[in-house]
Amino acid sequence: MKKMISQATIDRLPLYFRTLRLLEDEKISIVSSEELGRRLDITPEQIRKDLATFGQFGRKGIGYDVHDLKEKLANILGLHNRWRLAIVGVGHLGGALANYVNFASLGFSVVALFDNNPKIIGTQVNGIKINAASQMKRIFASKEVDIGVITVPASEAQAVADLLVDAGVKGIWNFAPTKLNVPLIIPLINEDLSIGLSALSYYMTQE
Amino acid sequence: MKKMISQATIDRLPLYFRTLRLLEDEKISIVSSEELGRRLDITPEQIRKDLATFGQFGRKGIGYDVHDLKEKLANILGLHNRWRLAIVGVGHLGGALANYVNFASLGFSVVALFDNNPKIIGTQVNGIKINAASQMKRIFASKEVDIGVITVPASEAQAVADLLVDAGVKGIWNFAPTKLNVPLIIPLINEDLSIGLSALSYYMTQE
Repeated sequence: MKKMISQATIDRLPLYFRTLRLLEDEKISIVSSEELGRRLDITPEQIRKDLATFGQFGRKGIGYDVHDLKEKLANILGLHNRWRLAIVGVGHLGGALANYVNFASLGFSVVALFDNNPKIIGTQVNGIKINAASQMKRIFASKEVDIGVITVPASEAQAVADLLVDAGVKGIWNFAPTKLNVPLIIPLINEDLSIGLSALSYYMTQE
Repeated sequence: MKKMISQATIDRLPLYFRTLRLLEDEKISIVSSEELGRRLDITPEQIRKDLATFGQFGRKGIGYDVHDLKEKLANILGLHNRWRLAIVGVGHLGGALANYVNFASLGFSVVALFDNNPKIIGTQVNGIKINAASQMKRIFASKEVDIGVITVPASEAQAVADLLVDAGVKGIWNFAPTKLNVPLIIPLINEDLSIGLSALSYYMTQE
C-alpha cells in the first residue's frame, strides 16, 4: 500500500507532530485544521490535504483528536523506533549535533562518535567516546547503530558513506555538500545549511 | 513584477547554483537539464520548470550557458549582496555556524557574535569577539549587520527576535524550535534540524 508522497508533505509531518505535542502539553484535546494552520503559518487546506494522504483522521466540523493524531503521525514517521545515531566527523558541526537536545525529544539518541583525528580519539563529547573510523563495524554491532550522520568535509564524505554501508547502517543523514552514492535500499537525506540561508537572501532581495 | 514562487522551487535554486559553480570549475561551459538532473537527482522537467519561472535561460537542443545561468541565479538569490551575519547564542550550534565554511563560499560572512553568558563574553570564536546582547544595537550599526541568526533555546528566542528587530536587522534565520512574531517586512526563515532526521526516519520505516 505504498503511495508516492511528496518530500514537501513529509517535511511538514514533523511540524504537525511537534505542534500536536505542544497542544497535548497545553491539555487541548481537539484541534481544528484552522488552529493548526494558525500556529504553523500553513493554510488549513494544505494541512487537511497532507493528512488525508495518510488516512481519514479528523471529523468534519469538529476537528482532530490531538492525542490520536499525534500517535498516528509518530507511527507514520517511525518515531517509536527510538533510532540510534552515530556521528562521523566530530568537528564543530558534529559536536553541535552530538549535543542537540531536540533529537532526544523526538526519540533519537546519539550512541557513537567517530573521527580520524588522533588528538580527539578517546576523548568524550556529551559523555560519548570518540572512536577511530576503523572501529566502525565493531561498534555498530555492539551499539546497535541505525543511522549514520556524516559531518566530515565533502572530500571525505563518499569514503565515510562506504564505511557506513559496510558497517550495516540502515539510513544516512549527510551534511557534507556533495552527492553520495549509496545502495538504493539505504535511505539518504542530504542536509544543506546553506539552503535556508540562500532562501533568506532571496526574500531579502525581493523586499 | 513579483510572482508567487513556491518555497520548494526557491529551495532548489541554491542546489542549481552550486552545481553550476562546480561545472564552471570543471571548465564545462554548456550544460543540459538532463546533466544537471543527473548530478542532482532531480528530473530534467522539474529543472526546466523551475528555471522557466525566472525567465528564458536555456536554448532548446543546446542547453544552458553555465557561467551565464550561474550569474543569473546568484542575482535572483541575492548572493552578490555579501550579507553580513550576527549569531545570537554561541552554544554548540552557534559555535558550529560561526565556523561553517560553506557560508563563506556563498558570500555570507559572520561579523558579530552575541551571548548572555558572562563566562564567554569577551572571548573569541573564529576570530570574532563575543559581545553581550545589550550591545546589539551599537554593534549592528558599526558592523553593518544584515542577518540575525538565532541559536538560543526556544524559551529565549522571541526576546532575541525583538532585540534583533530593534537593532535594525534585515532578515532572521531562526534555529530555535518555536514560532517567532516579527514584522512582516522582515523575512524570517525557520530552520529545524529535526525535520531532515524525521524524514529519514519516515523512509527507514517504509523500507
